[in-house]
Amino acid sequence: MSAQSKANDLAESGSPAQGAAITRRLARYAVEARWEDIPDEVRHHAVRSLVNFIGCAVGGARHHTVEIAVSAVRAIGGGGSAVVLGRAERFSPSDAALINGISSAVLDFDSTQAKLTNIHPSGPVVPAIAALASIRPVSGSDFLSAYVVGVEIACRIANGVFGRDNPGWHVTGVAGGLGAAAAASRLLGLDAQQMTAALGIAATQSGGLREMYGTMCKSFTPGRTAQNGLLAAMLAQGGFTSSPAAIEGATGLARVLTNRDAPESLCKDLGATYEISANTCKPFACAIVTHAAIDGCLCLRRDHGISSDNIAMITLTVSPMTLKLAGDPEPTTGLKSKFSVQHLAALSLIQGAVSHRHFTDGMARDPAVVALRARVRVEVDPDFAKDQGVVKITLNSGAIFETRIQHARGGLANPMSDADLEAKFIDLSEDGLGPRIAARLVAQCWRVADLEDFGEILMLSEPEDDRR
Amino acid sequence: MSAQSKANDLAESGSPAQGAAITRRLARYAVEARWEDIPDEVRHHAVRSLVNFIGCAVGGARHHTVEIAVSAVRAIGGGGSAVVLGRAERFSPSDAALINGISSAVLDFDSTQAKLTNIHPSGPVVPAIAALASIRPVSGSDFLSAYVVGVEIACRIANGVFGRDNPGWHVTGVAGGLGAAAAASRLLGLDAQQMTAALGIAATQSGGLREMYGTMCKSFTPGRTAQNGLLAAMLAQGGFTSSPAAIEGATGLARVLTNRDAPESLCKDLGATYEISANTCKPFACAIVTHAAIDGCLCLRRDHGISSDNIAMITLTVSPMTLKLAGDPEPTTGLKSKFSVQHLAALSLIQGAVSHRHFTDGMARDPAVVALRARVRVEVDPDFAKDQGVVKITLNSGAIFETRIQHARGGLANPMSDADLEAKFIDLSEDGLGPRIAARLVAQCWRVADLEDFGEILMLSEPEDDRR
Repeated sequence: MSAQSKANDLAESGSPAQGAAITRRLARYAVEARWEDIPDEVRHHAVRSLVNFIGCAVGGARHHTVEIAVSAVRAIGGGGSAVVLGRAERFSPSDAALINGISSAVLDFDSTQAKLTNIHPSGPVVPAIAALASIRPVSGSDFLSAYVVGVEIACRIANGVFGRDNPGWHVTGVAGGLGAAAAASRLLGLDAQQMTAALGIAATQSGGLREMYGTMCKSFTPGRTAQNGLLAAMLAQGGFTSSPAAIEGATGLARVLTNRDAPESLCKDLGATYEISANTCKPFACAIVTHAAIDGCLCLRRDHGISSDNIAMITLTVSPMTLKLAGDPEPTTGLKSKFSVQHLAALSLIQGAVSHRHFTDGMARDPAVVALRARVRVEVDPDFAKDQGVVKITLNSGAIFETRIQHARGGLANPMSDADLEAKFIDLSEDGLGPRIAARLVAQCWRVADLEDFGEILMLSEPEDDRR
Repeated sequence: MSAQSKANDLAESGSPAQGAAITRRLARYAVEARWEDIPDEVRHHAVRSLVNFIGCAVGGARHHTVEIAVSAVRAIGGGGSAVVLGRAERFSPSDAALINGISSAVLDFDSTQAKLTNIHPSGPVVPAIAALASIRPVSGSDFLSAYVVGVEIACRIANGVFGRDNPGWHVTGVAGGLGAAAAASRLLGLDAQQMTAALGIAATQSGGLREMYGTMCKSFTPGRTAQNGLLAAMLAQGGFTSSPAAIEGATGLARVLTNRDAPESLCKDLGATYEISANTCKPFACAIVTHAAIDGCLCLRRDHGISSDNIAMITLTVSPMTLKLAGDPEPTTGLKSKFSVQHLAALSLIQGAVSHRHFTDGMARDPAVVALRARVRVEVDPDFAKDQGVVKITLNSGAIFETRIQHARGGLANPMSDADLEAKFIDLSEDGLGPRIAARLVAQCWRVADLEDFGEILMLSEPEDDRR
């Protein structure tokens, strides 16, 4: 079908009003997108995001939050043979989607698309398709295509429908389920009508409150949203019906969320641009607005061999957003310490690194860290972007060292290198899997596009000592 | 604890602002409410609503919508031993909650609390606690207490938070999960802190779009919402954390839905009044605004022995809402025929009854019905309430019969009698269970408060011919 006849066809299928047939157009894209058309650069972005996801999920798989969820689904879910990354037990595909989604998000280390919102699109999308790949063979390229398409749908909903109108909604839960449904529906081979239904079934499960930030419910949302999308795809496969205008309808998702029509821009350049290319991976498992300060501290320590014992004062110049979101001078828990630029500067200078392992209650109250963070002064430069910062260290000797971070590592302007990502993966996974399997697993992830069956990655992610 | 010290304690646990500690106060009520304190009249309302629920769920259990959902959960859920009303297979408790919720709503015949919204509170609440009663003994009085409390929470959220601000949200999905969570949490014996967490975990799963009305997703919502509440309770039992201000917080449920603070009225007279007393049961499985016209037609046919062959014209005088919501002159499907007062008048006069069995595509296109409904004229009286109507029938002979319905049967002003409800139950369940078991089952439902184990009702609801 030519591009022109496709456009005509799309125009006919909806009313001529603003937002006509948006759900159907997204569905058609999700069905028709082809692996062959995805540029190499975009594929590599997808692989990087996947490496990040698998590392985070394996690293989070034994978190207390996950253990509670596992107990709950053991009691009310059923058994099955689906893999949960980083755990030896098997689950039903639906429960595996829930647990993988929680694991991937529980360390606050998952990838972020920060164009207009801070959606974490992988959290809902990957677990939905990993659950299917647990029960049927799915080639690596099919898996990646579904991932790219799912992220595309989730981020377009996030940026187009969600916007900044509803600061109370948790965007990953509101938009992510449609992405998960689209990705899972592709693996099931659904047609455009079924795909439209799947998007609708996912839309009617959209939810998630920002009120839950700082509680276990934050990481619960991507997990539950992954399940929602998976269930939506399965129901649509069976012929379950839904509104074909779930997004743009008079009582559809855009209206209930923003009280405005869904914008035409939702479908702009569909298939020509890729949202996953703007998905970024964090080097540190804490608030992204603190990363410039951490970068600066680590850089000065390394370049000048600074010992924390010799420091008289640390002055951080940060963005207004940094102080607002992460200016807690006395964090008392590991979770709170993720939102304290003072704590993070002290930690960086004492440890010479910031690992996810550092976000414990013990470290938040560590005497050396507490003493050093009391010497941190924070100043705001109203012109600084949130990835910008200046760190100045005054030693007891009177010597002064200063560095300016123009773009913190991990953002779109200064992404983590592949080697950085691999180091992050190993750091996250070697405790659970052992260094040998962790290295094999990350190698498999890098070559995912060539795998005959994504199941190889899933199997390798089960802890070695429990392996049957 | 005295009422005064309780009030002091509640006042201390939150900020003094509007809506302080609403979530905690609802949670405490849900934990502390006692069977002994529930008045007999309220208990009887609960039993009536339960009779209605069980009948609807058994009657809907073989609907095509349910069959698709069963296939989907068979593929991605796990097995288990939980009962689905009206079906012989067993499921995991979570999947049973989903299926029971869909079955109960799929015929559009479930109970309604129409104070400010049209919430169907039983759809989320009963399946959540029935799932638990499938895997552990639960006395009939404990079951009923949990049901009363769950409906209380769901309806208070519906009427207090939801109101009329968000016509796009499907209120049963937005409010029902908190009720399901409260009811399930009671059966699990959770304390006030865990109950607060359960309400929060349910709130962050709130969703459901009215855009889905007229599709299978409408009945999907109570099912999924029941699952949400059940999962919330199980997670809270394990210590999962959530915001203690899920409803009233700055980015909590009230704010995201209404952009206003949660009103203090949410907790008004908590424990002194009972929302379930305003829950009503429909005599006909179609739009409630058509019921006055149906009542009038059935009454004239019966009282005057009118044969439909002799009718020249039918004139219906109805409320403005009736014409708006249910004025389709030529419905082409069984589902659409539920929203055609013309069709329903013709059907009533031909059949002498309106059963859920009549809402088929075949009946919507039946030549006799189509011919008679062409003779229906609809007039609006702007002063008529939606349960009010006048029916005038002119025979070919010139004779005219007229009746006025002041309050249609089934509303709060003219509720169905217990005998009516039992007849509805038998009509809904005897096809699936056989008349003998249907009669035994309804008898057990009426005496539920005295049952040692609610499981007796669940077991009896399995089709006889498949019984092991």
